[in-house]
Amino acid sequence: MSIQRILSGMRPTGRLHLGHYTGALENWIAQQNLLHPDGSRAYETCFLIADYHSLTTSLDTSSLYAHSIDMLIDWLAAGVDPDKSPVFRQSQVKEHSELFLIFSMLVTTARLERNPTLKEQVRDLNMESLVYGHLGYPVLQAADILLYKGNVVPVGEDQIPHVEITREIARKFNSHYQHPELGDVFPEPSPKITKFARLVGLDGKAKMSKSLGNTILLSDGPDEVMKKMRPAVTDTLKVRRNDPGRPEVCLVFSYHQKFTGEAQLAEVEAGCRSGALGCVDCKKMCAANISAELAPILERRKHYEERPEMVKEILHEGETKARKIAGETMKEVREAMNLGESNA
Amino acid sequence: MSIQRILSGMRPTGRLHLGHYTGALENWIAQQNLLHPDGSRAYETCFLIADYHSLTTSLDTSSLYAHSIDMLIDWLAAGVDPDKSPVFRQSQVKEHSELFLIFSMLVTTARLERNPTLKEQVRDLNMESLVYGHLGYPVLQAADILLYKGNVVPVGEDQIPHVEITREIARKFNSHYQHPELGDVFPEPSPKITKFARLVGLDGKAKMSKSLGNTILLSDGPDEVMKKMRPAVTDTLKVRRNDPGRPEVCLVFSYHQKFTGEAQLAEVEAGCRSGALGCVDCKKMCAANISAELAPILERRKHYEERPEMVKEILHEGETKARKIAGETMKEVREAMNLGESNA
Repeated sequence: MSIQRILSGMRPTGRLHLGHYTGALENWIAQQNLLHPDGSRAYETCFLIADYHSLTTSLDTSSLYAHSIDMLIDWLAAGVDPDKSPVFRQSQVKEHSELFLIFSMLVTTARLERNPTLKEQVRDLNMESLVYGHLGYPVLQAADILLYKGNVVPVGEDQIPHVEITREIARKFNSHYQHPELGDVFPEPSPKITKFARLVGLDGKAKMSKSLGNTILLSDGPDEVMKKMRPAVTDTLKVRRNDPGRPEVCLVFSYHQKFTGEAQLAEVEAGCRSGALGCVDCKKMCAANISAELAPILERRKHYEERPEMVKEILHEGETKARKIAGETMKEVREAMNLGESNA
Repeated sequence: MSIQRILSGMRPTGRLHLGHYTGALENWIAQQNLLHPDGSRAYETCFLIADYHSLTTSLDTSSLYAHSIDMLIDWLAAGVDPDKSPVFRQSQVKEHSELFLIFSMLVTTARLERNPTLKEQVRDLNMESLVYGHLGYPVLQAADILLYKGNVVPVGEDQIPHVEITREIARKFNSHYQHPELGDVFPEPSPKITKFARLVGLDGKAKMSKSLGNTILLSDGPDEVMKKMRPAVTDTLKVRRNDPGRPEVCLVFSYHQKFTGEAQLAEVEAGCRSGALGCVDCKKMCAANISAELAPILERRKHYEERPEMVKEILHEGETKARKIAGETMKEVREAMNLGESNA
């Protein structure tokens, strides 16, 4: 059966939190492991550590490598299987920047300025201070995807405009340059709208975010999870232990919905509404369920943490595989563009 | 004695004309061959075929390679010595695009929009249609220069703003990233104001240009030179053979000034002013002098034209050398940025 390729990536921000897990990693791993009825894989998955992308918002690279390794360990711990999915850093596969340069000739600045995500990002900034590479973010993203000929891009609703730029660039390249044997070099990748389970932060803010300090990390042990859960604000109208609560406004209940089994979830909801279940007990149950989900991840994390050389080897093997795919694509690009003979 | 490095480049537009020769190539070769009093070289010269730069103004790459080879033959014919000066294509040294991507994070779009050369180029265009890579032209140029740690950039007055952007990028990189051993990775290259002998076109237009069809090619034989010279407009007030002429308004005289020896030049000027020298004879003398200058170039051109494999080998050897230098610089860049271990 046919196999489709998916390129997914994250910026290396260091240790991941539950929001990354429910918002992305869970999907990545499901896609990696999804089989056709005949037992063959539905998707070939490639996982990118987007270290160059980080530069669009911060030039401080002092922890970039350490963060990349930490993030990779979380990926592996969460179930990324390097035998199935090459893992690699953008900065280690030169072809990303080559294709970025070529693609930069295929899109106007006006088109990039119309990108709604960019508009949101620079809303608080002065447009005067917009960095050239930041404006080109979707161009680099197009290079990331198309270098591996990704034909499906799992996205949330808000990211559809980015995929549209990738599609336009692929179309433009194909319309200008035809490979003598292949014809079109690039697929026009389709966005696959994916429901990402957003997780609110421990402070009640709309999402977990490292910079807000409102996260539970994938690497947090049971004590740490409980310690973080304890001060979380619940329903502000439930003041005393036996006051009835409103689960629909309680962030702890939103975690229960994600991490608690159906039967227990019904009990929690009923207990909260009746006032029989106090917030402390409710938080304990929630923390325990989160820790149960994290237990195998923690165990695998420990395995990799104790083997830093193995982690590096996995990364370097992934980078070798990625370079091979990327090199083949760039060879086709060069042939289609008639860039001439090479001894490289 | 100290040696400085100069990176010079041209877009591959095919066969070169006299304007390229007097405007650039003559300087290149003088720099290549300039010696210190102790006999050591004053400059290490690197010559770049800027094929990616061509994309900023035309996406048609069908003749890019053929034009690159044709231009290289002209370089070699004019005196570029590949043993002294590596010659190479931008598209064959991936590090150009890597450094372009990194540098794209170090400059704002507003800064690039203030570039007067760009403003001139897009004056007739709608800013709406400005291509992203075109806006980034000086960023790629900075990468070209700094990849080879060029510390001198020979420029005409009008190109000083470009060098200023390169200097700013070098400063910004050095201020953010310090190499543990080297400190600053990049020099801040100094512009070296160079007087380029501009040549007016055969039609009297301000400069020779392939697109205007008003050129004498470096590969034109004596008959071709005379044929092109014959219809050139001279002083429009000199109607009959014996009318006195005004050399200062005559384009043929401007060529004489460049290609005719001092003694004969005085004769030509006097003859024109008195009316003793007719335009046809004057053109014949001028064409003969140009062809005398071109004779050794034509001879060397023939040598290389008959040996296409040798030309390719020269190019590939230059590209291997360039990759070595560029790879060393990028290794330092990675170390300074702490991008982490690599198995590449």
